[in-house]
Amino acid sequence: MFNGHSHVGFSTRAGSDKKVKVFSTAKQEYLPEEFGVVSKEDMEEALWKATAAFETYKKTTPEQRAAFLENIAEEIINIGDPLIQRAMLETGLPEARLTGERGRTVNQLKLFASLLREGSWVEAVIDPALPDRKPLPRPDLRKMLVPVGPVVVFGASNFPFAFSTAGGDTASALASGCTVVIKAHNAHLGTNELVANAIIKAAQNSGMPDGVFSSLIGEGASLGQALAKHPAVKAIGFTGSYRAGMALYKTAVNDRQVPIPVYAEMSSINPVLVLPGKLEADMDKSASLLAGSITLGVGQFCTNPGLLFVLECDTTEEFIGKLSTQLQAIPAATMLNQSICKSYYTGREKITTEKGVKAIHLGEDECSAYKGSVALFEVNATDFVSNPNLQDEMFGPASMIIRCATADQLKQALHALHGQLTGTIFGTEADIAHYEECIDVMTDKVGRLIYNSVPTGVEVSHAMVHGGPFPATTDGRTTSVGAEAIKRFVRPVCYQDCPEANLPDALKDSNPLGLMRKLDGRYTSDPVTKQ
Amino acid sequence: MFNGHSHVGFSTRAGSDKKVKVFSTAKQEYLPEEFGVVSKEDMEEALWKATAAFETYKKTTPEQRAAFLENIAEEIINIGDPLIQRAMLETGLPEARLTGERGRTVNQLKLFASLLREGSWVEAVIDPALPDRKPLPRPDLRKMLVPVGPVVVFGASNFPFAFSTAGGDTASALASGCTVVIKAHNAHLGTNELVANAIIKAAQNSGMPDGVFSSLIGEGASLGQALAKHPAVKAIGFTGSYRAGMALYKTAVNDRQVPIPVYAEMSSINPVLVLPGKLEADMDKSASLLAGSITLGVGQFCTNPGLLFVLECDTTEEFIGKLSTQLQAIPAATMLNQSICKSYYTGREKITTEKGVKAIHLGEDECSAYKGSVALFEVNATDFVSNPNLQDEMFGPASMIIRCATADQLKQALHALHGQLTGTIFGTEADIAHYEECIDVMTDKVGRLIYNSVPTGVEVSHAMVHGGPFPATTDGRTTSVGAEAIKRFVRPVCYQDCPEANLPDALKDSNPLGLMRKLDGRYTSDPVTKQ
Repeated sequence: MFNGHSHVGFSTRAGSDKKVKVFSTAKQEYLPEEFGVVSKEDMEEALWKATAAFETYKKTTPEQRAAFLENIAEEIINIGDPLIQRAMLETGLPEARLTGERGRTVNQLKLFASLLREGSWVEAVIDPALPDRKPLPRPDLRKMLVPVGPVVVFGASNFPFAFSTAGGDTASALASGCTVVIKAHNAHLGTNELVANAIIKAAQNSGMPDGVFSSLIGEGASLGQALAKHPAVKAIGFTGSYRAGMALYKTAVNDRQVPIPVYAEMSSINPVLVLPGKLEADMDKSASLLAGSITLGVGQFCTNPGLLFVLECDTTEEFIGKLSTQLQAIPAATMLNQSICKSYYTGREKITTEKGVKAIHLGEDECSAYKGSVALFEVNATDFVSNPNLQDEMFGPASMIIRCATADQLKQALHALHGQLTGTIFGTEADIAHYEECIDVMTDKVGRLIYNSVPTGVEVSHAMVHGGPFPATTDGRTTSVGAEAIKRFVRPVCYQDCPEANLPDALKDSNPLGLMRKLDGRYTSDPVTKQ
Repeated sequence: MFNGHSHVGFSTRAGSDKKVKVFSTAKQEYLPEEFGVVSKEDMEEALWKATAAFETYKKTTPEQRAAFLENIAEEIINIGDPLIQRAMLETGLPEARLTGERGRTVNQLKLFASLLREGSWVEAVIDPALPDRKPLPRPDLRKMLVPVGPVVVFGASNFPFAFSTAGGDTASALASGCTVVIKAHNAHLGTNELVANAIIKAAQNSGMPDGVFSSLIGEGASLGQALAKHPAVKAIGFTGSYRAGMALYKTAVNDRQVPIPVYAEMSSINPVLVLPGKLEADMDKSASLLAGSITLGVGQFCTNPGLLFVLECDTTEEFIGKLSTQLQAIPAATMLNQSICKSYYTGREKITTEKGVKAIHLGEDECSAYKGSVALFEVNATDFVSNPNLQDEMFGPASMIIRCATADQLKQALHALHGQLTGTIFGTEADIAHYEECIDVMTDKVGRLIYNSVPTGVEVSHAMVHGGPFPATTDGRTTSVGAEAIKRFVRPVCYQDCPEANLPDALKDSNPLGLMRKLDGRYTSDPVTKQ
């Protein structure tokens, strides 16, 4: 079922003599299949193909790319149960979760197909010529977004489908007209091979050029670094650790002749404000929602709520007790891979040595079985503010309560927060009005602000922002989930006095694609009528 | 008339004992006024004020900010002739040019005012809740762009109004809701003081918070570096040399705990394709347009055409002869400052030592009088491709012809091009069809593509792109001129299940600002109606 090869465009390559295997935390052993580490020459060829293919691919019509994306979705579904089974083995994630994630991945591809058919995402802006303007005539100016070129995507361990081989980065890059080279995640190389096969099959079905997609297998950080330094690469999409993301980001700026954008989603601990009125009105539900969110997927979500800011009041102790009880009821469960599991327990251990931190509940260490058990800590606002170490991500089912004696303390603690993917408010209408200033401070730190719900569960839609100020990402101006993710892989070009025949369809007078465009500063889908 | 002080919000500060003076190339002497170098404490205070003011300023209505921008325009006009006179002294630019540039600056402020009143630039996207969706309900998601915080703007020497104190960076940052701290350009400190006074006056007239704008005077690169490292600064706008731009960019990534975006417009030599049919049809006009563009403003424009790619044909020599004759007729003229003038002559000298480069015409060296004389060089495509030094910017009235023997050579030469602000095509309809592949290659390298006109003269409008791939800028995803420039100083925030009362106006159901919004993936200005 697996040949263990890299995909260099439509060809496969066995790679060098070096082989890697996948460790299964579910089976607690290495899986038998061997995957070949790609050679330098094969990597060069993949990038050369991606560059050559870009020349053709960028000229495909939106409809052709939409059909290609839909065909990828179809081919992924066609793999059937073997894909889910392999992903279960490789990630330790349960079947229902993986089936759901596959659905999400397929919907994501379809969302971009519909975005392409609607078409206005290219942000066409037209200022027609004003030949009689005084003192100088105005030329005809027409702007739109165009794809930048080959994009390298790094698969993420915690979403083997939705943030990996055919995940959001790949879908948005292919939608924009960029070609894609995947650095497969070593924790799910079999899953990657199956999905890469599906993409290649879809590319061939859809008449896409050889090189529109490649998937490369590497060892350690060396392939990633080589890709980040390569002049053919025009942008990078990454989801993973702060250390790996920053290494790519620094390389892309410092070790290249031409720096490129790196969209790295890295570290977020997703603060929650638990406000007094809400505890009064709805304590049980709040505790149970939070306990569920902290432990969802063994806490291995980027949006896991890792900090709970509690304003001390009459009900504080009761709430903490209930939350702790709820958490304790949740059994330890298999984590994604050895390294994540080890880091989780190391992080837990380290945090208990920090000044003022107290463990409210510390589940048994089940590291040897690769299982993560829940943990709940607490610290006061003053100690939190003075110690940035308390903002290190513990990737797993753990959270920390920050006890705030006053609203001022709460505000100070929020000022000390680093950038985050999300911030959440558990509050009644009166709470929200009363703590408006605190919510304001939190808004400045986050990409998404959630009211009375949990941050885990990221909707794939037009309005989603899955991004946020550093260190949540290296580029808080963007999102890696939802329709707007396509904007990461494009840049604007303005055509001045371009003959109608040579204009891209999106900018032609007649508006053949029926786009919403900005014409002389006003939105319209009308054609351009000459004076 | 001048007190030589920095503006720290609404206060002025004499600064330390260190004073700087402005050298006038027009008068060939230092001007008498002394300007005080700001102290570290005053700089800190300006940034503290900018941070505090941001909390208020970001909540101003679009209408309030529009009125503020219009008031700045008014106050600049109110300075009257003394502003033009001082700028003439400080920059050596002629009166008509400066009057025109002032008009452009004022129009730029008004463009952003109209953009704010129209309002849709915030890119409101709304996905209403789907409570009955299976398997999971969809939450209510609403996204818009919000300002990032204090922005530092570096004044540019070549546009004392349009790219300086109240220039495009300042106008777009203030429009977005960000506060601004100017690093005044040392070549026009008097002009800066007058314009900064006007902005402060407008801020006070309009009830804007103390700290919405500051203007600081420094020495060498030290103030710039200190600003780029400061944690309060959230983004940087810069126009100037490659060296200075890259220093800021590297600092912003490497020497800060939280990296920030640097929008540096740096080095562009603006290739022109001169195609055979066009020479046949329109040689005289082409030569005269190009000669005018090369020498406009003594060649001191970012969009100056520094490379002319000529496909050799029967008329090549005649064209080169005519262009050279036209250029020789243009007298040397006063350059902006000592350093630019010196660099220009050094660059000219250096290029003549490069392999294969021949001077067709080399105007007399008038460096001692701070005047720039025209120069025209030529080189063949092979030598051009093999020598990246030939792409070093010579900032002044010089250009180089790249002789291409074949279309293939032309294409190769274009492939070797670095990123550029602009690319220009002089071609007939038949030329454009015949050399489509070459134009394609050039399009990948530029931010603006111009047909049968010159790259100098940058329209301030909705569709303008004044940006381009590195090294033209550090961020080819943006523009520093035109309405889209506002997008540099914002980031998206998504509100999930936010109560209607707490939503920003742009996202409210009733659409009180009448914006064009994306609702469930379709553009509309309709209100949101609940199911």
